[in-house]
Amino acid sequence: MDASSGGPPLTYAAAGVRLDDAEELVRRIAPLARASLRPEVVAGVGGFAGLARLPQGCRRPLLAAGADGVGSKLLVASALGRHETVGVDCVAMNANDVLAVGAEPLFFLDYLAAHRLEPGFVATVVGGVAEGCRQAGCALLGGESAELPDLYKPGEYDLAGFCLGVVEEERRLGPERVREGDRLLALASSGLHANGYALARKALLERGGLRLDRPLPGWPPAPGGSPPPTLGDLLLEPTRIYVRPVLELLRAAGEEVHAAAHVTGGGLAANLRRVLPGGLRAEIERTWPEPPVFRAIREAGEIEEAEMERVFNLGAGFVLVVAAGAAEEAARRLRAAGQEVFPAGRVVRA
Amino acid sequence: MDASSGGPPLTYAAAGVRLDDAEELVRRIAPLARASLRPEVVAGVGGFAGLARLPQGCRRPLLAAGADGVGSKLLVASALGRHETVGVDCVAMNANDVLAVGAEPLFFLDYLAAHRLEPGFVATVVGGVAEGCRQAGCALLGGESAELPDLYKPGEYDLAGFCLGVVEEERRLGPERVREGDRLLALASSGLHANGYALARKALLERGGLRLDRPLPGWPPAPGGSPPPTLGDLLLEPTRIYVRPVLELLRAAGEEVHAAAHVTGGGLAANLRRVLPGGLRAEIERTWPEPPVFRAIREAGEIEEAEMERVFNLGAGFVLVVAAGAAEEAARRLRAAGQEVFPAGRVVRA
Repeated sequence: MDASSGGPPLTYAAAGVRLDDAEELVRRIAPLARASLRPEVVAGVGGFAGLARLPQGCRRPLLAAGADGVGSKLLVASALGRHETVGVDCVAMNANDVLAVGAEPLFFLDYLAAHRLEPGFVATVVGGVAEGCRQAGCALLGGESAELPDLYKPGEYDLAGFCLGVVEEERRLGPERVREGDRLLALASSGLHANGYALARKALLERGGLRLDRPLPGWPPAPGGSPPPTLGDLLLEPTRIYVRPVLELLRAAGEEVHAAAHVTGGGLAANLRRVLPGGLRAEIERTWPEPPVFRAIREAGEIEEAEMERVFNLGAGFVLVVAAGAAEEAARRLRAAGQEVFPAGRVVRA
Repeated sequence: MDASSGGPPLTYAAAGVRLDDAEELVRRIAPLARASLRPEVVAGVGGFAGLARLPQGCRRPLLAAGADGVGSKLLVASALGRHETVGVDCVAMNANDVLAVGAEPLFFLDYLAAHRLEPGFVATVVGGVAEGCRQAGCALLGGESAELPDLYKPGEYDLAGFCLGVVEEERRLGPERVREGDRLLALASSGLHANGYALARKALLERGGLRLDRPLPGWPPAPGGSPPPTLGDLLLEPTRIYVRPVLELLRAAGEEVHAAAHVTGGGLAANLRRVLPGGLRAEIERTWPEPPVFRAIREAGEIEEAEMERVFNLGAGFVLVVAAGAAEEAARRLRAAGQEVFPAGRVVRA
């Protein structure tokens, strides 16, 4: 061997990347993706690009696109080794964004990057993505799984995604449709969704010294005597996907729905402001129940109320701005579709 | 203070996330995105979802979508603190994928995740993304910038993206159009593009002990006496975006172009196989020049030739499968559009 040699010929595998595993991954992911197919899909996972037609009957379609990631919620999943539902969060963050302009999610692509793409791990994560796509009614059209051993620590990973939706130009929701007097309807969240985990983790785990594998102190026993949820259960509760109830409402009474806000980073007020026109503001009435996990965060971190409202959804994950005369009927329709909904105030002059 | 208190009330900022910075980021990114706008864009960065119309004159459009990241090339950028062009790589990996099915890239969204989203850093990275969008002729429609201090090490980040393209159903490229006797045209790459960096870094930096801030040993002086490129320059050379020359060819002689392959992980042969029908195979003739960086990698890592071909593009970044009688004219058109192109073999019976 010459002086520069450090051993046998280098290979991609020795550098930490296994192309054979990549083919194994496609074999594992393809059936998960097929389970979420829509009739519009022409070519799914495996080609250079996924291909889909527009839904039938489109006249003046607008394409709506969002990109978002799961963020620090992934660190809770990694700490517990529970990766089944972060894919639902990933789809939810994107599909709810696309829904907020009134669009129907058509397809989704995921980006998963990890220290090591162990096929079972990838299948678990992407299985959650496929379940999210099923809940959002969109196809899992493709995605990328990247093994980056020098960028991610062992056991850690990032997960983001992209959702494409379609809305007829005249059905698009937004500020130009909002009127003084419109009513706000708050759709219940399932918990933190995928926002504020940097603060929640610091408050609960560092300041509060709470453990992910234990129930919150004072948590009431579950009905039927089953054990109470652990803090990890509460923090991993998947983000609610609002697509089906909201699309049902839009199909039945789209004229009466003026705007929508997905309550993510920034909280309810800031996200509502994004869809209100100049001269109007939201007068928010908090009538909905706050899930108990938020009280635990507030107390453990001694967090001021204004900061809580600025970071967390506090129980309202999606807000609709609806014509005053149609609000009650809209709420009834949402409840009939299985969605908890609460009056949340009105639009007034700024 | 009570026993559980660790100091003043916790805030999102104290947990490492600054929402004010997020607003500053949108202010910085919006003008970059505007520079890449297309007439189809209805709403860009800042809303819940970006919105775009289809290009005018679409009859039976197929939507083509790809998701991909830059991968370990980012570690070279981080090591050198040079983040200007990884955004070009990010767009390239996706736009070239979408192009491989014959689609015109319409818009792009990026996902940037980092330990810390310093606004100047983000503007630099997204400036590269916007430049890539300009080269690919697509709009930067949106994206996500995520600050994840507990997932990424200081100074490190990940960058991925999503490209949506449009192709008329009858102009779609793919296996069903490929015929025995078709000619292969290899389009020159600009270097490694964004593939094989795990192996390249291990070979050059670890085995070879080479330095990113020095020229490769024996590198010829540049014409005009300017200093030779450093290894870092060679490794950060942005991925070539093939959209403009290939779309020009498809517009002029689309019937004669049967399939295309973006040469990424797996190398030329494996990527070509993805677009050949059963019963046919590619007989590849390597007539194109190999950029010198590949020899340096091969020698430093004592890498076998089969492994080099399986991991790197070796100078051919995109391959077109063209009707035999039209290959010469297609090559002439590509050269007229500024693209180096080489005959690369033919399609034969398997």
